[in-house]
Amino acid sequence: MLSRDSGGVGSYRLDMTLAPATPAFLDRLAQAVPAVRIDPPSARWLEEPRGKWTGQAAAILRPSTVEDVSTILRMCNEAGIGVIPYGGGTGLVGGQLTSAEGVLVLSLDRMATIRASVPEDNMIEVEAGVTLQAVQQAAADAGRLFPLSIASEGTACIGGILGTNAGGTAVLRYGNARDLVLGIEAVLADGTIIRDLKRLRKDNTGYDLRHLLIGSEGTLGIITAASLRLLPRPAQRGTAFLAVDNPAGALSLLHKLHSELGEVITAFELMHRQGLDFLAEFFPNMAHPLENNPEWMVLVEVSAATGCADALQDALGAAFEDGLISDAVLAQSEAQRDALWAIRETIPEGNRMTGAIMSHDISVPLSQLADFVARGNELVRAIAPDARINCFGHVGDGNLHYNVFPAPGRNRAEYKELQDSIQRAVHDLTHELGGSVSAEHGVGRFKVGDLERYSDPGRLRAQRAIKAAMDPNGILNPGAVLSGVPLG
Amino acid sequence: MLSRDSGGVGSYRLDMTLAPATPAFLDRLAQAVPAVRIDPPSARWLEEPRGKWTGQAAAILRPSTVEDVSTILRMCNEAGIGVIPYGGGTGLVGGQLTSAEGVLVLSLDRMATIRASVPEDNMIEVEAGVTLQAVQQAAADAGRLFPLSIASEGTACIGGILGTNAGGTAVLRYGNARDLVLGIEAVLADGTIIRDLKRLRKDNTGYDLRHLLIGSEGTLGIITAASLRLLPRPAQRGTAFLAVDNPAGALSLLHKLHSELGEVITAFELMHRQGLDFLAEFFPNMAHPLENNPEWMVLVEVSAATGCADALQDALGAAFEDGLISDAVLAQSEAQRDALWAIRETIPEGNRMTGAIMSHDISVPLSQLADFVARGNELVRAIAPDARINCFGHVGDGNLHYNVFPAPGRNRAEYKELQDSIQRAVHDLTHELGGSVSAEHGVGRFKVGDLERYSDPGRLRAQRAIKAAMDPNGILNPGAVLSGVPLG
Repeated sequence: MLSRDSGGVGSYRLDMTLAPATPAFLDRLAQAVPAVRIDPPSARWLEEPRGKWTGQAAAILRPSTVEDVSTILRMCNEAGIGVIPYGGGTGLVGGQLTSAEGVLVLSLDRMATIRASVPEDNMIEVEAGVTLQAVQQAAADAGRLFPLSIASEGTACIGGILGTNAGGTAVLRYGNARDLVLGIEAVLADGTIIRDLKRLRKDNTGYDLRHLLIGSEGTLGIITAASLRLLPRPAQRGTAFLAVDNPAGALSLLHKLHSELGEVITAFELMHRQGLDFLAEFFPNMAHPLENNPEWMVLVEVSAATGCADALQDALGAAFEDGLISDAVLAQSEAQRDALWAIRETIPEGNRMTGAIMSHDISVPLSQLADFVARGNELVRAIAPDARINCFGHVGDGNLHYNVFPAPGRNRAEYKELQDSIQRAVHDLTHELGGSVSAEHGVGRFKVGDLERYSDPGRLRAQRAIKAAMDPNGILNPGAVLSGVPLG
Repeated sequence: MLSRDSGGVGSYRLDMTLAPATPAFLDRLAQAVPAVRIDPPSARWLEEPRGKWTGQAAAILRPSTVEDVSTILRMCNEAGIGVIPYGGGTGLVGGQLTSAEGVLVLSLDRMATIRASVPEDNMIEVEAGVTLQAVQQAAADAGRLFPLSIASEGTACIGGILGTNAGGTAVLRYGNARDLVLGIEAVLADGTIIRDLKRLRKDNTGYDLRHLLIGSEGTLGIITAASLRLLPRPAQRGTAFLAVDNPAGALSLLHKLHSELGEVITAFELMHRQGLDFLAEFFPNMAHPLENNPEWMVLVEVSAATGCADALQDALGAAFEDGLISDAVLAQSEAQRDALWAIRETIPEGNRMTGAIMSHDISVPLSQLADFVARGNELVRAIAPDARINCFGHVGDGNLHYNVFPAPGRNRAEYKELQDSIQRAVHDLTHELGGSVSAEHGVGRFKVGDLERYSDPGRLRAQRAIKAAMDPNGILNPGAVLSGVPLG
């Protein structure tokens, strides 16, 4: 149901029993919720960040209270009108866009209040439209840390971050988005408001709706606010950029550092030379931190109250003697630290400017990771011998962004016929190795077919039963995550 | 529906549309699953650990494979027969016991295999009948840490621990049971097997059934195995037993230590003099570690790869000068550490031997904790002026075990008329302060009425919809967690 500028895998089904939002319906809505802004559709809400897809909508609804969200959903549910929840719009799997006509986009951008910041409870309560960066800043202002960190944090909003259970660079130590949530406020398809903004680490009173709604990509309910966990703010950081032999060597290093340093390792990011070559092409002022342009690199960061930077330096010295690393730069200042991180964080932009044939967001058990890279490269080269592969990511979590690019001088359109077979080969291999074909980006509409292909049948069946129970008319983000949901 | 030796709050409803398990049904079952042991009911399966309640059952089913669990549930579902899942039997809220006749107890004790221990994946896969202690030991054998720790760990099994989302003394640092689970294998009411034993930190492919089943107390499905997260094993620990002025002082100390030491604080347990007085009565050989029998005490433990014990000593020295602590003992050996922990861990046994009028397992936001203790004490004394209060627990999580005991020379039967009003007063106060009336023990059958009284109506409604969707005949642990579930 998405219109796409390129082929690819995925089946998008929007059950046609949904009704379009008519002008008459929008008039009734305007009377029922006069404080809600009802805007005509425009590019801001309908363009995918990389320009891959364009969505449609009858109108953009912009409520500012949970009560108005409730009224909107109740009326849409009664009329059988589809609703697409919209956060910062940074999702990469088409979860925020549909090409089905007549749906309503429900933007949370006007629910952007930090309702409370209570350092003594290690808690901050924010509305769905607050950006991740604003939460990080508010936590810092309170002398605490909100550790989640993703490339799009300046734009991505808490509602979408929780809807998709975002991951990022600090999962190794602090977990995924869901692990940082104490409570939520949400609205179900029939308008039922769930007010469960607890500030408790421990609460065993019934089923965990919080975790069910987090990661459901707006298909079971719309999260309007959350109480988030804050952590002690580490006083000291240590950051190093390293040359390693290969992915297996990176993992040996990780295990060694974990043994010697414990849980102070906050990030452990793998990079391949290809990503830095793209940077050299598009960002010539960005200097390579290491000599001899090594094939594989790691960015490691530790943080703690005290002593961790020296401990990292000692451990890396020993790793050098053991032959686990062949070159290293340790950040000696905040500016150097920022420069090292800038390399890692600009890699996605270099990828975007190059234009991928196909991107993959996979995870495999750590013990399978080196095998995945070796076999994946063979599979891709058998399909597209001249393609370039940029493999990078959160290797401490077993999560790699494994992206395939055209040969120099060619463009991705020339590989259009190969896209599906590349993706299928990479995803089949991931599945064979016990991995996930969507580690942190979610299913959206792009990976609906993958979910059906690779998911355990029992799990899929239970997911459909839950969707049917919580959204019997199928109005919530129709076509995302699950297709073929029994409706009505 | 429970028979109880004492009054108390709670409404237990078992929908009478359930059918009893007849001898003819058990014969059919024996033919369908010949490897399943079908035992007559006996005290082992029907006695509550403190002797508070006695359950009933038509038979005890003891399968050894997930496939047999599936067949059992499919047949029970078709016949409309209730099934009570049974782990180690250590639950404190009657979740493993019913007085309804004709139900079947399904014990997981013969599914007790550690299927895999893979330190390079930081993962261990275990069946439901493995004890927590066995998991801790297997993790240690693999050079890793499984941090969950509860008083009943030698008996409590992983199935029940996940079914109830157990908490314990290490939640402050490592989270609740659910936070340590990578994947599960489970069977739904209709026999559907969910095989989702992933070993991944990141997997965003659809709804999180793992977290829905964890903490559902066997009412949505029966967990038969789990892949659990292992962590780096800290090489160093520091442990201290401290005198503090009061709960507010304990929290000030916690915030100070968090600021200075960061996340190395693994446990922060509050104790009141009353608990140690009980120990002095029943365990006269257990020496008090501090002089002058202070009213409030804290057991703090730090753990890390290196340096944390010295850092704790320094921080406590500063806290002493600031007046936050008035006395302290630091463990100088493993034996001393064990002795300090033995005091904390024997307090529940002292309570049991004294015999509580009413126990409470509450949590409140940290900022409300001191207020809770002060007002709770006033409320209880207004109802039972001579009662003794032992308030202790995981104060770093805001989780207190707030237990009320008879005056010396009196017994709890004399307070029978006051039980309900004491519990209601404590729970009303907890709710008023934004807390939970079941922080870590779950709802079981004992707190079904509390769940209905205090839960957000929208949350309760959604929980009922999920129960009806996943267990339409209401066979799974009937009468636990939710009453009044629409059946069929």
